Amino acid sequence: MEYYAVPVAKLVEEFQKLPGIGHKSAQRLAFHVINMPMEKVQKLSESILEAKQKTRYCSVCSNLTDVDPCPLCSGTSRDKTVICVVQDPRDVVAMERTREFKGLYHVLHGAISPMQGIGPEEIRIKELIARLGSGEVTEVILATNPNVEGEATAMYISKLIKPLGVKATRIAHGIPVGGDLEYADEVTLAKALEGRREI
Amino acid sequence: MEYYAVPVAKLVEEFQKLPGIGHKSAQRLAFHVINMPMEKVQKLSESILEAKQKTRYCSVCSNLTDVDPCPLCSGTSRDKTVICVVQDPRDVVAMERTREFKGLYHVLHGAISPMQGIGPEEIRIKELIARLGSGEVTEVILATNPNVEGEATAMYISKLIKPLGVKATRIAHGIPVGGDLEYADEVTLAKALEGRREI
Repeated sequence: MEYYAVPVAKLVEEFQKLPGIGHKSAQRLAFHVINMPMEKVQKLSESILEAKQKTRYCSVCSNLTDVDPCPLCSGTSRDKTVICVVQDPRDVVAMERTREFKGLYHVLHGAISPMQGIGPEEIRIKELIARLGSGEVTEVILATNPNVEGEATAMYISKLIKPLGVKATRIAHGIPVGGDLEYADEVTLAKALEGRREI
Repeated sequence: MEYYAVPVAKLVEEFQKLPGIGHKSAQRLAFHVINMPMEKVQKLSESILEAKQKTRYCSVCSNLTDVDPCPLCSGTSRDKTVICVVQDPRDVVAMERTREFKGLYHVLHGAISPMQGIGPEEIRIKELIARLGSGEVTEVILATNPNVEGEATAMYISKLIKPLGVKATRIAHGIPVGGDLEYADEVTLAKALEGRREI
């Protein structure tokens, strides 16, 4: 028994394939779309297609961009001696929000994970190494995620980089600002203790 | 400062306009779309446009449909003497899922709400009254939501219907199946008590 009109059922199905959207949310979104004015629906539909069509990976840093090289790589105000290595384009956004980092980026598009069959060749490590060839870069900040895969990836890259005479650094682990010691897990707390600094 | 490529930023903005989708979810969805294969992105984009373009309201019951009259209105197996009145097309889906109701529907597309300036003319009440003219319908089940607006709408319609010699009934209020008396609010519990039946 079809409860919905066919085009509605199709849209619910498509929405349900998106991450974090279950059947109820998909249904709510579909009915919302049907109630939207036509020009807004067109805008949504086009934005989806355009985001896919017009974005590609920057040939330098592998970040998502609509111009190649991306504005971050071609920006004259950026410090070209430091590269911050992240797993995902979203991490670039997070780093940029801090307004603290003025160097370049390199997006790996993943992390080494033997469990998932992802080896060093599957992520963009050789592209990073190639960027270090010119000798301009003096420091690589490894900002992969603080989990097993991220740590392994940071470790792997640091071992490749050191022989090239480039400094490899890792972002600090510790208690999040505004966090509470009581609720911090023991590993984080141990890392925070280990990374203590004189004040 | 633009953190995203322009087409990505646009898509995040469009997703954020949808109900229940905040900035973080919009960002996750946008990046997911960019990582989807092109043909799947096209399918999603088209489904959105088609759902809007191909669906309209049934000229009989005002439910969403891609054929007019809708399959429920034109179905030969439906009991044409009973009309179930609901506020929203989603409520038709919910009713159909019970597999208990075999009659026709009428979708009001809202409820009377003086607070929001929605009077009886703003919702499809006169279309309902027009359907009762043929004399075929003997009962109208008022299945509007169990809140102030839904109750007022049910009351209003029942007063219009009774002079026409058509029976107006209201769906029962009570403790939800699988619910717990302890957690039921007092109004629901009072309604459940009031609607008690001999067993």
